[in-house]
Amino acid sequence: MKIAIDVMGGDHAPQKVIAGIVAAAKGNKVELILVGNRGLIEAELATHGVNGLPLSIIEANQVITMDEPPAQAIRQKRDSSIMVGVNLVKRGEAAAFVSAGNSGAVMAAALVSLGTLDGIERPALGIHFPTPSGVSFLIDAGVNAECKPSLLVQFARMGSLYMEKVLGIPNPKVGLLSIGEEATKGNQWVRETHDSLKKTHLNFIGNIEANNAFNGIADVVVTDGFTGNIAVKLVEGVAERIIGLLNETLMSKPHYRLAGLALRPAFQDIAQRLDYREYGGGLLLGTKGVVVIAHGRSDARAIENAILRAKDALDRGILSALEDGHKKW
Amino acid sequence: MKIAIDVMGGDHAPQKVIAGIVAAAKGNKVELILVGNRGLIEAELATHGVNGLPLSIIEANQVITMDEPPAQAIRQKRDSSIMVGVNLVKRGEAAAFVSAGNSGAVMAAALVSLGTLDGIERPALGIHFPTPSGVSFLIDAGVNAECKPSLLVQFARMGSLYMEKVLGIPNPKVGLLSIGEEATKGNQWVRETHDSLKKTHLNFIGNIEANNAFNGIADVVVTDGFTGNIAVKLVEGVAERIIGLLNETLMSKPHYRLAGLALRPAFQDIAQRLDYREYGGGLLLGTKGVVVIAHGRSDARAIENAILRAKDALDRGILSALEDGHKKW
Repeated sequence: MKIAIDVMGGDHAPQKVIAGIVAAAKGNKVELILVGNRGLIEAELATHGVNGLPLSIIEANQVITMDEPPAQAIRQKRDSSIMVGVNLVKRGEAAAFVSAGNSGAVMAAALVSLGTLDGIERPALGIHFPTPSGVSFLIDAGVNAECKPSLLVQFARMGSLYMEKVLGIPNPKVGLLSIGEEATKGNQWVRETHDSLKKTHLNFIGNIEANNAFNGIADVVVTDGFTGNIAVKLVEGVAERIIGLLNETLMSKPHYRLAGLALRPAFQDIAQRLDYREYGGGLLLGTKGVVVIAHGRSDARAIENAILRAKDALDRGILSALEDGHKKW
Repeated sequence: MKIAIDVMGGDHAPQKVIAGIVAAAKGNKVELILVGNRGLIEAELATHGVNGLPLSIIEANQVITMDEPPAQAIRQKRDSSIMVGVNLVKRGEAAAFVSAGNSGAVMAAALVSLGTLDGIERPALGIHFPTPSGVSFLIDAGVNAECKPSLLVQFARMGSLYMEKVLGIPNPKVGLLSIGEEATKGNQWVRETHDSLKKTHLNFIGNIEANNAFNGIADVVVTDGFTGNIAVKLVEGVAERIIGLLNETLMSKPHYRLAGLALRPAFQDIAQRLDYREYGGGLLLGTKGVVVIAHGRSDARAIENAILRAKDALDRGILSALEDGHKKW
């Protein structure tokens, strides 16, 4: 099994991406293909001890920047690390592709080049969220800004299959994000989706409100990509703001500083439980091939976890699970 | 100036609502009308020292519960504290109404009984959010689950006028909540609203992403009531979860407990800055009359702040500001 990684993508490329790749290769039996500028990659690898590690390089000499319009970028930059990497998956030379680059471009490339699985009209991005007792899976976290109810039902099925087959949760509870628990609450697409989900064989527990979204009452939280993306970024913003407030307050008085020092390991533990880097990025579900979209700000740790996320999904047979699941739907 | 308060509404009614009313009346020159069951109110007031306070009672002997369908409830319960309170405003016997009860019913009662201001098709709920440097105002936080762009432009104008006239912010910056800063990002209603807002005289700074929504780059954050309600509840959920994690961690080891004790005032300060109770509830803008919708979980402090929020809006002439503003639009 080989996993291709976009070495040119993300705010800290290529240095921290490569550091993450080296860490993943050292700790796990996985062959990694580094996609990007060969000169840059070789120079950077030379700073690590990589003798004997199962690393190879596939050259790609264009870079899609973070703010390029995705559709245009993937048409015009055939030799970009994103297009070259996705095409490795398409040709079967890699089983998965990981990128911290322009997420719109990665999704567009995956959709255009890999296509969708049978029964799936559009891929969706699934994100892991920590809950008091484990993780929940939010889908769609940002691919489809406009969703009809039939798409949301497909997302619910993919999320449920992922939680069951990859994370091993039996009969995952599926909740629909809305502004009230009653079936009559929400906007039109939520009400229609609610009715459709009730007719499936999924373990649909009904609408859930945002304050309950990440307390573990649902294993899968289904929403459209607009709402999902806002939810994910809001959580990130709020967590950062609270941690910022904590730091500010602890520095504000000498005796706070002392007590803060004693609590440093505790704060680090909390920050880690809230840290996007621990959760290995988002998983694009529904394309013919595994694609992991890491956070643009990924450091080495986040890249390593994103690679392990892809490996885990492959090891547990996510693609065949989604395909088999579809046949039973 | 008189303000009517729903004594029967909220999770902690009537005790804590009445405690909040007494606190507001003691500290401020404002006449308060307590709306609800006279026997309950008199018994509760007897436990406080209320001699000489400008309090009066208007009897209402039905209660709309938190989970009643709003439209039906306001039709059937004419003698509910919500309907009686809103009708005091309609008849000019109170200048504002404050309730921590069924928010859907309060909004429906206000809309049906008071009607909307000239130029406003639908009222919207505005919520204050703490930012590093002050507050931002999110509108709509949950009244209109479905919004066409013209409504969102009206919300933007109301929010801008509120921030300028009531909070004294000159030329408030207006941002549109979306999933990318570019005008082309978002779903269809966001793109259309973006184009419409650019044509107004508002200080429109463009789309803002959710992670930047509460860092103060915009004074007014405009969104539809579905997204806005999810945002508000998500922030509440995340803040509670982080505070819960902090408490858990601090109790987990004896030396953490000691350091945590030293930091208690610091934590309380942070919790206060994040606490919905400090911000006095949501302000329903666009109806002919001031209505403040306090959080269902309001304690005495939250009720007191909600009353002061209403008083402040009245003192600064929010209704005439919205009406005059409309003529200039």
